[in-house]
Amino acid sequence: MMKCSFQKSDLLNGINIVTKAVPTRTTMTILECILIDATLGEVHLMANDMELGIDTVVSGTIFEEGKIAVEAKIFSEMIRKLPDSEVTIYVDENDRIEISCEKAVFHIPGRNGEEFPYLPEIAKDHYVVMSQFTLREMIQQTIFSISASDTNKIMNGELLEVDGNSFTMTSLDGHRISLRKSFMEDEFEHSKVIVPGKTLSEVSKILTGEKESEVILYFSENHVLFSFDRTIVVSRLIEGEYFRISQMMTTDYETKIVVNRKKLQECIDRSLLFVRESDKKPLIFDIRNDNLELSMNSQIGSMVENLDIDKIGNDLMIGFNPKFLMDALRVIDDENINIYMINSKSPCFIRNDDSTYVYLILPVNFISSRG
Amino acid sequence: MMKCSFQKSDLLNGINIVTKAVPTRTTMTILECILIDATLGEVHLMANDMELGIDTVVSGTIFEEGKIAVEAKIFSEMIRKLPDSEVTIYVDENDRIEISCEKAVFHIPGRNGEEFPYLPEIAKDHYVVMSQFTLREMIQQTIFSISASDTNKIMNGELLEVDGNSFTMTSLDGHRISLRKSFMEDEFEHSKVIVPGKTLSEVSKILTGEKESEVILYFSENHVLFSFDRTIVVSRLIEGEYFRISQMMTTDYETKIVVNRKKLQECIDRSLLFVRESDKKPLIFDIRNDNLELSMNSQIGSMVENLDIDKIGNDLMIGFNPKFLMDALRVIDDENINIYMINSKSPCFIRNDDSTYVYLILPVNFISSRG
Repeated sequence: MMKCSFQKSDLLNGINIVTKAVPTRTTMTILECILIDATLGEVHLMANDMELGIDTVVSGTIFEEGKIAVEAKIFSEMIRKLPDSEVTIYVDENDRIEISCEKAVFHIPGRNGEEFPYLPEIAKDHYVVMSQFTLREMIQQTIFSISASDTNKIMNGELLEVDGNSFTMTSLDGHRISLRKSFMEDEFEHSKVIVPGKTLSEVSKILTGEKESEVILYFSENHVLFSFDRTIVVSRLIEGEYFRISQMMTTDYETKIVVNRKKLQECIDRSLLFVRESDKKPLIFDIRNDNLELSMNSQIGSMVENLDIDKIGNDLMIGFNPKFLMDALRVIDDENINIYMINSKSPCFIRNDDSTYVYLILPVNFISSRG
Repeated sequence: MMKCSFQKSDLLNGINIVTKAVPTRTTMTILECILIDATLGEVHLMANDMELGIDTVVSGTIFEEGKIAVEAKIFSEMIRKLPDSEVTIYVDENDRIEISCEKAVFHIPGRNGEEFPYLPEIAKDHYVVMSQFTLREMIQQTIFSISASDTNKIMNGELLEVDGNSFTMTSLDGHRISLRKSFMEDEFEHSKVIVPGKTLSEVSKILTGEKESEVILYFSENHVLFSFDRTIVVSRLIEGEYFRISQMMTTDYETKIVVNRKKLQECIDRSLLFVRESDKKPLIFDIRNDNLELSMNSQIGSMVENLDIDKIGNDLMIGFNPKFLMDALRVIDDENINIYMINSKSPCFIRNDDSTYVYLILPVNFISSRG
């Protein structure tokens, strides 16, 4: 038995948050449900795919305390299609759910709320506080270079490291490393965890991204918990030791160029026209004096473009997978970017002056056509 | 050899128009190309899938007359990604295409323009003139009820009939008929043709839809030609005799209801939640006095909703496939709609007072639960 009522928009908002943790495929059908828990004085919605769990509080009126699990897909579609009005949910003693709104009444079967697996309790000793805006931006600026392959679990997540007042997120996939660092007003105890990419991706969708709104991250031995607004997201951590990237992060260079980001991005985007899955040709940078010539040659055709640059150091020819450059440029806001290179075989770095972002990209071999 | 130049936006606009006639699958690779024909004093772009052909004129400067066929997909992606500036296309004696724009130069292979199949010449004796707005609207309001099945070719097209100053479009699929009629200022000779749904669908995407802009439809024995702006679209007709629908279009009724379209549409949309491909339950209309009760019962659950109506005639229970009702309601603009019914086995008609639109929908059987 349970009875409560909500404004449709509040309920829908809560559903949209928790459905991020409903698995698309599962053998445990209870996980395809959202739990509505009105036993704690306020209404919680909850979903849990056993890796990632989300709990959010929805404003509403409880007429009769109780809880019920309801199949997420049909429930979410149904609430979305209701008029923008008050929605009443009533559950009878047989777990049958009646949803009414204005002159519409729906009946769908529910499942006993006791079957639903609760989220794990997390110790709250280690934590860090930052703005939702910063966390969301840092996720978006690093998530693209986690690896999708199953060969190394650690590459499927990102390293989150708290050190005093600095917070760093790192991802890598064997061809590149993305690193973002931010500084907080307060100092926090040291923490170092590997968070699954899926968790970060879903969290970035739920965060409102406001600069004034805070998010607290709690780190326990096996879990991370994100707490913000009236929502908590709990996720398992990936076990293991992350790669030691500090020794790769050299600041030495032989060639540094400064180039307009947007113009370079547009050139690289055009070069992607010539890339086919079966024919991955490098995009060649020919840096001479204050000119960057980009060229690509594939079965499809060829392109040559020229961009003005500021250069320090040696002329250089170096080849890249244009997709990797594109992924990094897309998430940088700066008008001009610095690219640091050593030679055609060594990693290249896209890095701002205070190193709050660093994108390391390995070059690819090319046959020099230079005279 | 050929050389001409364009503003990027003009060229892209032309490409977007003609690509509607580039087949997605074909054994004739030349049909995957767009023909650029600069031999006639202005630049024509052309595409042709042998059923449907499109020719459009693009503003540009011809430096050297010639023609070339270029693979549509790569050409269209490339032009889209160029800066918003002047684009020069140069073709050498080996049909190699050089595309240049600002500091970017691309080379892609072309194909001899002579290989490209020209559009058929169409006699211009029978025609009709109307506004682009009207034609586009009429297509959108009827196209949804053509049949996708291969069993009867005629159902894959729409009947277009000119009779004096009236122009009628009809589509049907065995469960329903959609009919739209409009009246023109002038009288035209009688014509009656069956136009493939694909042609109408593509034409409706290209028409600007302005009330002041005209489109001329020319009808020959085997083709229809749409001429508007600087574009012509030529399509084969579907051969055969269309169904005689006039005898089905009775205006008799036993029950007429007037109902708010938007509210009914929202109810029906919600009832679609309970429909699964494997479990197509009818949406039951229970019309009593000035109330319409809509109900549906399926494996997923059940719904009951009530709407205020104005009724003339008998009370009635009748069942429908809600998708068919939805398709019709979606394209009607009127605030209130009239639904005419005879009994639970006879076709129902959604029709405005002057019959410029008529949607006939066959009811479906249901087991009456009425006392």
